[in-house]
Amino acid sequence: MTFINRRALGMIVASSLAALTANTALAQDKKVIAVSIPAATHGWTGGVVYHAEQAEKEIEAAFPNIDVIVKTSPSATAQVSALEDLAAAQTLDALVILPFTSEELTGPVEQVKANGTFIAVVDRGLTDPSIQDLYVAGDNIAVGANTAKWLADKLGNEGKVVVLRGIPTVIDDERIQGFTDVMSGTNIEILDIQYANWNQDEAFTLMQDYLAKYPQIDAVWANDDDMLLGVLEAVKQSGRTEIKYALGGNGMKDVIEMVMANDPVTPISTPYPPSMIKTAIYMVAGQFTGQAPMRGSFKLDAPLITPENADQFYFPDSPF
Amino acid sequence: MTFINRRALGMIVASSLAALTANTALAQDKKVIAVSIPAATHGWTGGVVYHAEQAEKEIEAAFPNIDVIVKTSPSATAQVSALEDLAAAQTLDALVILPFTSEELTGPVEQVKANGTFIAVVDRGLTDPSIQDLYVAGDNIAVGANTAKWLADKLGNEGKVVVLRGIPTVIDDERIQGFTDVMSGTNIEILDIQYANWNQDEAFTLMQDYLAKYPQIDAVWANDDDMLLGVLEAVKQSGRTEIKYALGGNGMKDVIEMVMANDPVTPISTPYPPSMIKTAIYMVAGQFTGQAPMRGSFKLDAPLITPENADQFYFPDSPF
Repeated sequence: MTFINRRALGMIVASSLAALTANTALAQDKKVIAVSIPAATHGWTGGVVYHAEQAEKEIEAAFPNIDVIVKTSPSATAQVSALEDLAAAQTLDALVILPFTSEELTGPVEQVKANGTFIAVVDRGLTDPSIQDLYVAGDNIAVGANTAKWLADKLGNEGKVVVLRGIPTVIDDERIQGFTDVMSGTNIEILDIQYANWNQDEAFTLMQDYLAKYPQIDAVWANDDDMLLGVLEAVKQSGRTEIKYALGGNGMKDVIEMVMANDPVTPISTPYPPSMIKTAIYMVAGQFTGQAPMRGSFKLDAPLITPENADQFYFPDSPF
Repeated sequence: MTFINRRALGMIVASSLAALTANTALAQDKKVIAVSIPAATHGWTGGVVYHAEQAEKEIEAAFPNIDVIVKTSPSATAQVSALEDLAAAQTLDALVILPFTSEELTGPVEQVKANGTFIAVVDRGLTDPSIQDLYVAGDNIAVGANTAKWLADKLGNEGKVVVLRGIPTVIDDERIQGFTDVMSGTNIEILDIQYANWNQDEAFTLMQDYLAKYPQIDAVWANDDDMLLGVLEAVKQSGRTEIKYALGGNGMKDVIEMVMANDPVTPISTPYPPSMIKTAIYMVAGQFTGQAPMRGSFKLDAPLITPENADQFYFPDSPF
């Protein structure tokens, strides 16, 4: 049996009691951060759910005075109801929201705001930006432009490329604009740009069309890592070997694994990370735990993900 | 004497040992965040030092795997040396820096970056922004514009105001631009705009000049809370009573106390908070403790500080 003298024991008990008292005091003044996000309907939103739940665990472990509540919703209508329920059940110090749609969520978020709740909006903006205290979003122009700069350099500003578009949205427009603006300053020819709706199967079919139509393709920009997987499968089945690079975007786990493995065709990606939900939750926690000023607009860069830094963008347990 | 049974004692000892072991494991993989800031040469930088030291305590308590090292420097030359010393003494995972001057610090920060260190720049930008991973700064145009909107509304878009400028810099230019752009859309006349170098005594003298020169002044915008204190003293000594509002900017503690007390002449301020150093330290901690993406540019808003929200901007123990 371990011998412990009475004085040491007294110190342990006293410090345990002090810790208990401190916890009780903190519990009375807990700050509640509600997180409202779409349910995991596809790869990227699956990543959002994963990172929101990780952030909940990490923030609650680090800051005992903060309670994070994550609520997922399968539709815009469900998200509106979820906001009503969250606000009815407790006083919300902060709401972190990735809105299903800007139109349907703006009014309900404004109502939450009216109670004095700090509002952090992620990715998709509200139709009235004055409602938000904090806005966190990626830079889609940079996703396209940084990929284009890397590719133009590798191709020596010469060659023929094909491009896939996502769903017609501002996000897609910005990515394409960033890419084509850079390419217009080179001798690289963009053979074709067609929509494949950020869908892996549609990207597979579109890439088959491109392969049939164009006998020489030096590189493919799939604009998105889900679509990239479809593109790579079509290239593989075609047996074509002249395609030097096939690049996507978003930083999907499968693609980052290719980057880490120094894949010759896909040696880079650019992040538009679902973990930006975590960015917002950490920032709001800083506002409420340390009064660190977090009102403003945070635009995430889209730095190239390379074999050297890929580990910083890699979450082996995430679905995305 | 408190009675503790053997089993309970065993549990306390075991959990203490487990805590010790966990701390040792974490210590082997500690992430080092160095913070390099100007020494407390005036009120605002005094606030920067206070908030950096608070952030160090809070972050280290919350995240046992993070070590924050705060280093203050009395000059640009000293800050260059401090960077060399910091980088020589240990591997820096991140550097948070508020540079004395952009010109003298850009090269030395680039050298730190070359070792793979994550670079967060606060307030004053480097001459080459591509060096930074994260940039955190206030919005000086909004400081001027938000104050002007509030004032124009209170004056019913009519009246005569005088304005004080700081030191000729981009910061001062932007504040004045934000203020005058809004005022140009009203019938308010700006009687005079002169420099007082963000100095309380010079602001006192300049305000005495304004009072002698202009028989009717409806409001004063001092542009900065240090200068506001000089303005208020000059108004007080003059015995003039027609001045409805005297406003500053930055969110100095003394002025936030006036706002909290519903002062009729100074009922608002706008923040350009020295606590933005804390914002950057919390964000970098999120990058290294939870891989939350923190590369990008965060522009802090300048929301009005009012009696309703003043407590969120108030740090009773800070020198500023």
